[in-house]
Amino acid sequence: MGRMALHRLVIVGGGFGGLVAARALRRATLDITLIDRRNFHLFQPLLYQVATGGLSPANIAAPLRAILKRQTNARVLLAEARGFDPVNRRVHLADGHLDYDSLVVATGARSNYFGHDTWEHAAPGLKSLEDATEIRRRVFSAFEQAERETDRARARARLTFVVIGAGPTGVELAGALAEISRDTLRNDFRRINPADASILLVDMSERILPSFPPELSEKAAAALRALGVIIRCKTAVQNITPEHVLLKADDHTEQVFAHTTLWAAGVAASPLGKALADATGAHVDRAGRVIVEPNLTLKGHPEIFVIGDLAHCVTGDGKPLPGVATVAMQQGHYVARVLEARINGDAEAKPFVYKDPGSMATIGRKAGIVHIGKWCYSGYFAWLTWLFVHLIKLMEFHNRVLVLFQWAWSYFTFNRSARLITGEAQSGDHAPKELPHH
Amino acid sequence: MGRMALHRLVIVGGGFGGLVAARALRRATLDITLIDRRNFHLFQPLLYQVATGGLSPANIAAPLRAILKRQTNARVLLAEARGFDPVNRRVHLADGHLDYDSLVVATGARSNYFGHDTWEHAAPGLKSLEDATEIRRRVFSAFEQAERETDRARARARLTFVVIGAGPTGVELAGALAEISRDTLRNDFRRINPADASILLVDMSERILPSFPPELSEKAAAALRALGVIIRCKTAVQNITPEHVLLKADDHTEQVFAHTTLWAAGVAASPLGKALADATGAHVDRAGRVIVEPNLTLKGHPEIFVIGDLAHCVTGDGKPLPGVATVAMQQGHYVARVLEARINGDAEAKPFVYKDPGSMATIGRKAGIVHIGKWCYSGYFAWLTWLFVHLIKLMEFHNRVLVLFQWAWSYFTFNRSARLITGEAQSGDHAPKELPHH
Repeated sequence: MGRMALHRLVIVGGGFGGLVAARALRRATLDITLIDRRNFHLFQPLLYQVATGGLSPANIAAPLRAILKRQTNARVLLAEARGFDPVNRRVHLADGHLDYDSLVVATGARSNYFGHDTWEHAAPGLKSLEDATEIRRRVFSAFEQAERETDRARARARLTFVVIGAGPTGVELAGALAEISRDTLRNDFRRINPADASILLVDMSERILPSFPPELSEKAAAALRALGVIIRCKTAVQNITPEHVLLKADDHTEQVFAHTTLWAAGVAASPLGKALADATGAHVDRAGRVIVEPNLTLKGHPEIFVIGDLAHCVTGDGKPLPGVATVAMQQGHYVARVLEARINGDAEAKPFVYKDPGSMATIGRKAGIVHIGKWCYSGYFAWLTWLFVHLIKLMEFHNRVLVLFQWAWSYFTFNRSARLITGEAQSGDHAPKELPHH
Repeated sequence: MGRMALHRLVIVGGGFGGLVAARALRRATLDITLIDRRNFHLFQPLLYQVATGGLSPANIAAPLRAILKRQTNARVLLAEARGFDPVNRRVHLADGHLDYDSLVVATGARSNYFGHDTWEHAAPGLKSLEDATEIRRRVFSAFEQAERETDRARARARLTFVVIGAGPTGVELAGALAEISRDTLRNDFRRINPADASILLVDMSERILPSFPPELSEKAAAALRALGVIIRCKTAVQNITPEHVLLKADDHTEQVFAHTTLWAAGVAASPLGKALADATGAHVDRAGRVIVEPNLTLKGHPEIFVIGDLAHCVTGDGKPLPGVATVAMQQGHYVARVLEARINGDAEAKPFVYKDPGSMATIGRKAGIVHIGKWCYSGYFAWLTWLFVHLIKLMEFHNRVLVLFQWAWSYFTFNRSARLITGEAQSGDHAPKELPHH
């Protein structure tokens, strides 16, 4: 009706990258469509808290529509992207299609079992809310099953937890599991002592948290050991079944009988990366990430941006950027600036540069490690820094007051109130036995 | 070793009745085992808040072990009771058995489709946390699907919600659905207006909330109508499919095209009631509830108590007691007193008498009705009463501060932050279509 057709931007994926790009364009004269398979943005850095019963799913997820409610130039579509037609500038959905003038693909990563796909069932990864509630179910069911187990070896296997991968997620999971068994469940059982649980943290590297300076790795390892976590570095995983994990260090192998194994060892890009590369002639790296130009577009397709965990983006030192939220968010802001410059007819922006704001990890409720520029510190103050930074980040989306409150509550009561076993039980969850009274 | 064998009490079911019985016996010299299939106690009166995204599952559920943590004469077993052997005083479990000296069966009720079991899939009831998250998924998915629907009739069907049964649960669900469409989702969509949603509340009775005095029913109906709910009384349901509901009033039938139908029309006792009756020679009523003696035991089995929604307990006026939490809780206390008297060799307690503390219901966030003795009132103050009473009740278990906080938050922000669509999507959730830009 006389109104000029607006430039249509389609953003695929409502994670940190896609959502920040959409929000940063809130004053731009654009027609933005954000597509996601889920109706919520997930604050992934706190997913381990849901997996261990400390927070509820809704504490770390905010409806995308609520976030973009007042942004009139954006709409949200609950839809699944399946492929791309870059010639006709069209996204294929599971149930339709969508035309674009510019495209941002930010569909992230998922757990990667390096070809051992049969391990997935025995050792779930932690990428979605469903993963988190499934892990929560397994962890708390394991203690319940141990309480009913009369065979000592079987009871011990049910009280053995193996976390594979000692990056921040694996370290945080292992720390939380140790806390659960030492503090949260104290006095809850009558036949077993939850503190007898064994928690193993396994990694191929020389040390845990290899992306941190060695002295911080050492502090983190000490904090984990103080909580009772057994650390196995330079150790490879040879096999995982629902009953055991086969480890190999140097020349000897070890069979660990464990009913609960969690996978935090690696991620691969969403399969849409490969689909996009095939359609555009771009290349993907070994993890399936799309190799992007310095301005985060694809060669020959300045209208297509790939950001976040899906992008393989090399900066000055030749190494690809890590798959962390801060990279995705800075890339989202960058894409917004490039698009605004194009709409306004300004000069094209300079190549993307990542400003590392530092990294941190937490170990249980009392210790953390922080690495910001030249600063390295650990202990209780690092834990407080971690808490503060995550609350501030969460605040950009929502729910921060509730989460702060829930945390304060958990902290002072030692109670993980969200430790519900929900969803379908799996066969074999219960071992038959007599039940002598205590 | 030299300690006299304690009297073994087995309580089957960790709902209001079973849990109160266990707690009331905390100072008794007994060996208590509480069995439940789930690891948590569920505060059912607030389940509709989870189904409509206002609260998280963990806000209304507390781990049974946490509640009984410090009660050293009690233990909790995560197990499924399957049957009873009253001669040998033994409970059969899915995976073992358990011997008792006294038994309390309090396994509650589930949704009852009055023989139309095929309706269950099309119209889920609201008895478990899984029911609630499934209803939440359906409700919020319906708006998402309507946003993508190009056919007007189909879009209208997706924005039509039918609640069957106008007791407190049905009224509270309908009120919450009206609020979601009028307030919560305002501005969230670009093509549909959520306020166009139709919400029908259907009941066979002459009026909604038939257990309340007529003037309160009328006030509640007026409050629902003010929120835009369409009330159909004296209306029977003839059929339910995933696409439509067939209603019959007087002599004419009406086909309502609705993709979301919720069942709040009736409950039947847990099948363990029938199993217990068969084993003991007791009788069940039409809803499968076990008919109990005035002291809540079974004839010929003074050691077996049945309480809560599973019991058919007749008092002075000849009518069975309603299936509400207050009945179950008073019965739990009563059973504890009877058992303590027996252990202490005191005279057997007098028959159980229910002291009706009154009843109340809430309609959305501004109205309620309260009926306490001779008092009847409605409106905002009734809503506050409802809130206060439920918080106090919840407080006996846990989590009250968090829930108060979450409610205050929701109340002042009009935001239902727990409106996550989780779990498996079902086939047919998405209708294929083109997606014109707005």
